Amino acid sequence: MPNLKDTQNERDDRKIAIDRVGVKNLRFPLRIRDRDQAQQHTVATVTMAVDLPHHYKGTHMSRFVEILHAHGRELTVASIAAMPKELLSRLNARKAHVEMRFPYFRAKRAPVTKAEGLLDYGVIFAVDAEGDEIDYVVTVEVPVTTLCPCSKAISERGAHNQRGTVTLSVRFRQPVWIEDLIELVEASASSQLYSILKRPDEKFVTEAAYDNPVFVEDLVRSVAQKASAHKKIKWFRVEAENFESIHNHNAWAVIESHNEAES
Amino acid sequence: MPNLKDTQNERDDRKIAIDRVGVKNLRFPLRIRDRDQAQQHTVATVTMAVDLPHHYKGTHMSRFVEILHAHGRELTVASIAAMPKELLSRLNARKAHVEMRFPYFRAKRAPVTKAEGLLDYGVIFAVDAEGDEIDYVVTVEVPVTTLCPCSKAISERGAHNQRGTVTLSVRFRQPVWIEDLIELVEASASSQLYSILKRPDEKFVTEAAYDNPVFVEDLVRSVAQKASAHKKIKWFRVEAENFESIHNHNAWAVIESHNEAES
Amino acid sequence: MPNLKDTQNERDDRKIAIDRVGVKNLRFPLRIRDRDQAQQHTVATVTMAVDLPHHYKGTHMSRFVEILHAHGRELTVASIAAMPKELLSRLNARKAHVEMRFPYFRAKRAPVTKAEGLLDYGVIFAVDAEGDEIDYVVTVEVPVTTLCPCSKAISERGAHNQRGTVTLSVRFRQPVWIEDLIELVEASASSQLYSILKRPDEKFVTEAAYDNPVFVEDLVRSVAQKASAHKKIKWFRVEAENFESIHNHNAWAVIESHNEAES
Amino acid sequence: MPNLKDTQNERDDRKIAIDRVGVKNLRFPLRIRDRDQAQQHTVATVTMAVDLPHHYKGTHMSRFVEILHAHGRELTVASIAAMPKELLSRLNARKAHVEMRFPYFRAKRAPVTKAEGLLDYGVIFAVDAEGDEIDYVVTVEVPVTTLCPCSKAISERGAHNQRGTVTLSVRFRQPVWIEDLIELVEASASSQLYSILKRPDEKFVTEAAYDNPVFVEDLVRSVAQKASAHKKIKWFRVEAENFESIHNHNAWAVIESHNEAES
Repeated sequence: MPNLKDTQNERDDRKIAIDRVGVKNLRFPLRIRDRDQAQQHTVATVTMAVDLPHHYKGTHMSRFVEILHAHGRELTVASIAAMPKELLSRLNARKAHVEMRFPYFRAKRAPVTKAEGLLDYGVIFAVDAEGDEIDYVVTVEVPVTTLCPCSKAISERGAHNQRGTVTLSVRFRQPVWIEDLIELVEASASSQLYSILKRPDEKFVTEAAYDNPVFVEDLVRSVAQKASAHKKIKWFRVEAENFESIHNHNAWAVIESHNEAES
Repeated sequence: MPNLKDTQNERDDRKIAIDRVGVKNLRFPLRIRDRDQAQQHTVATVTMAVDLPHHYKGTHMSRFVEILHAHGRELTVASIAAMPKELLSRLNARKAHVEMRFPYFRAKRAPVTKAEGLLDYGVIFAVDAEGDEIDYVVTVEVPVTTLCPCSKAISERGAHNQRGTVTLSVRFRQPVWIEDLIELVEASASSQLYSILKRPDEKFVTEAAYDNPVFVEDLVRSVAQKASAHKKIKWFRVEAENFESIHNHNAWAVIESHNEAES
Repeated sequence: MPNLKDTQNERDDRKIAIDRVGVKNLRFPLRIRDRDQAQQHTVATVTMAVDLPHHYKGTHMSRFVEILHAHGRELTVASIAAMPKELLSRLNARKAHVEMRFPYFRAKRAPVTKAEGLLDYGVIFAVDAEGDEIDYVVTVEVPVTTLCPCSKAISERGAHNQRGTVTLSVRFRQPVWIEDLIELVEASASSQLYSILKRPDEKFVTEAAYDNPVFVEDLVRSVAQKASAHKKIKWFRVEAENFESIHNHNAWAVIESHNEAES
Repeated sequence: MPNLKDTQNERDDRKIAIDRVGVKNLRFPLRIRDRDQAQQHTVATVTMAVDLPHHYKGTHMSRFVEILHAHGRELTVASIAAMPKELLSRLNARKAHVEMRFPYFRAKRAPVTKAEGLLDYGVIFAVDAEGDEIDYVVTVEVPVTTLCPCSKAISERGAHNQRGTVTLSVRFRQPVWIEDLIELVEASASSQLYSILKRPDEKFVTEAAYDNPVFVEDLVRSVAQKASAHKKIKWFRVEAENFESIHNHNAWAVIESHNEAES
């Protein structure tokens, strides 16, 4: 093999450091243990990046992908946790960023008939490392039902309702289960969702939603209240988007906790 | 300028004709006159293609884009109608295909307060030409409210409802207005949507939806019934997808008319 | 439990049969054995539908989801194959449609250094049943490199190239491996893609692509030629879309085999 | 009309203020004057939000949409600029946020034949108001060609290249034209893109890209250098994503200026 020029290693004289450089939109299998100790297999979409000091012309893109493959043909939470350090060392970087987005399944029983079905959620793990400091953010995307309090209050019958998505991101003092975050959100909605609902179940969720109307504002406040009170959570951001059944646009609300300093 | 080799014009010896070859995913401004004779400006996403006889190596991609620009910086319905012939002639083809997808706006008055707002729809024009035969298909994508008849029948209060999308494609004997197709669909739903609803309007649409429950099956049948009875329509396909508020999946139904031969 | 009204079972008097009605956009885990006999785990996005005779008001949506869950928490190819019959019987239907879209991984070695990495593809299984007749269509979505023959021929140095996606659907006489379809496509491109390429590999694929220029037309013809000659394939449709590096739009070509009758 | 209960105006006792609440994903026509003083018409996707003090139960969603419609059936830059104040006043808020995303067209002449064609870009206007303080951020999404310096250096012939997207956001001291930002980005790429390229033009851009190889790192640095030197720009963030032609994943880099304090 001839000695191939290493262009990336050349000097750059523009004196401009790069905040993040790496690879985006790789798909890779992921195995994860859920709260019930069962293993589930899913597929992650991966971003990996490092900072680049001003004097290097380029990073070595293939090393990111090698690190991704270093632990076999399926990622695990342990291998994700190890990646930032591997990036810092293999790429001579001071900062590393790893992000994994994946569908996550939870077996749920219908409220009356107890028929069991899997419901899918979105989960994002984001890890930032700077030297020995590691910052983890876990995000869950939870589909819910919301029923409009105003529509219920002013109408003689019925009330408009719809699917919405709540996106809750947290930093934590002690590890929390994905399921705990999901349940925290589901308990704040007009009703939670299920994949299988027989008629008695459908009656139950219809009436439950009618009895628990929430604005998008109520939804984020209720999640914020629970997240603030949760001992393991030290920071959160919650966003809710309702796919309004009476409009072709969405209702949207965001709360970000401002108490990180105190934690 | 040296004489640059025309690779596309070379012979191909594989004896394989190509059904469609062209350009996809171009964006271009479009001006269109609506039923009220007002002009509206929008942006189309364009596909243009021709067939390619087996003996040519390639088509001339730049000519598609030249034809798109031939009528100025804004397309019109007239210029779209002229395109298939221009494609057949400029590209020595026997078949041509042109497709435009664009958002389309309609001013609607709220049902009680009469507050006026624009509602956005999706529209697709597809034109296929083979020699002198031209086939037009117009598609409208109409957002609606659907309220579940089963949920209403079994529940003591409330009924789950949600936004859904109805996609209606038609071939016609005489031209129909986009607004006519939209209204045909909206009249088949539990309620139509609005961009502005004040409280008296919200009361109205909530109660109207509760009084007009439709399954996704009812929705496509009702559209099919109206489309079958419409004198200008000779073929249709209707598809409805409900973003169920009680599930994280959608309910879906399709009817395609089978009476084209008789027309 | 009171006897809850079964609205779906009511009569409909509109005399309009429904072609397809069911559920769309469910996600569910899937386990699949690859050509190397290794098992891989992935996540499918599922559509399931049946026809509905004109006299029924509605289908029973929850049964679709029950059938999806009937074989445990992970689908397999065997359970997908069994689904259409289960749909026909549980829903009293004459036609059933099942579709699964999922990412699929293949371990590939880089051409020179032999570094191994996983590459992701899209796969779609579609099954249609009508009585005892079953129609299977398998689709692979294969990312490739294409290098433009015209650009190479007219330029003194370099040639524009880009990522493209080839979508190949087949009906078959005897089962084919997903990997066989992928390889058939990859052999038709300027170069195949890899997830890990070290410098000697990058040199190899750069020069290989330069030595194998293909138009989008060449790409679909080359796939069509191989598919036509393949003994197990009885029908195919191939579509290629190039994300042109010199334009903000895509080049696109389609060939559908017209020889099914003869097969 | 009976007096309908105003649920939104009720008190909330949870003591939790909401950072942003409003509407998302509305589409609305937009008219904008370009640098050549020509008017272009496009379609914006709109987000509008305000903060909500802790003691109010909800905001009034319909007022957002009324404000959007207050200036007629087409937005203008002037009407967008006026919106934050209208939101603050109509909704009794302290903070307002308005965001518009839209396709934007620019007529460009091919480099050799001077054939003129429209190229489409993405543009985002974001305005945040807090009392009298207004913060504008303008973002352009510019498609470009990038040719890999490493691939060129190590290969005997050819070099892999691809389409990439550069996303440049700026805050400014004096207004800048969208076209100025686009040109700043295009001057940093291996080549700019065109919608119409005849053969002499294709030769030109192929050779130009080969003569100007840039890593994704070079691209963001070159944009950063120009943006830092630009007198009207006081803050910027630049992100580049290359749809690598040799991989199924993307190369990605980000620089955010850290000099805002000094401005």
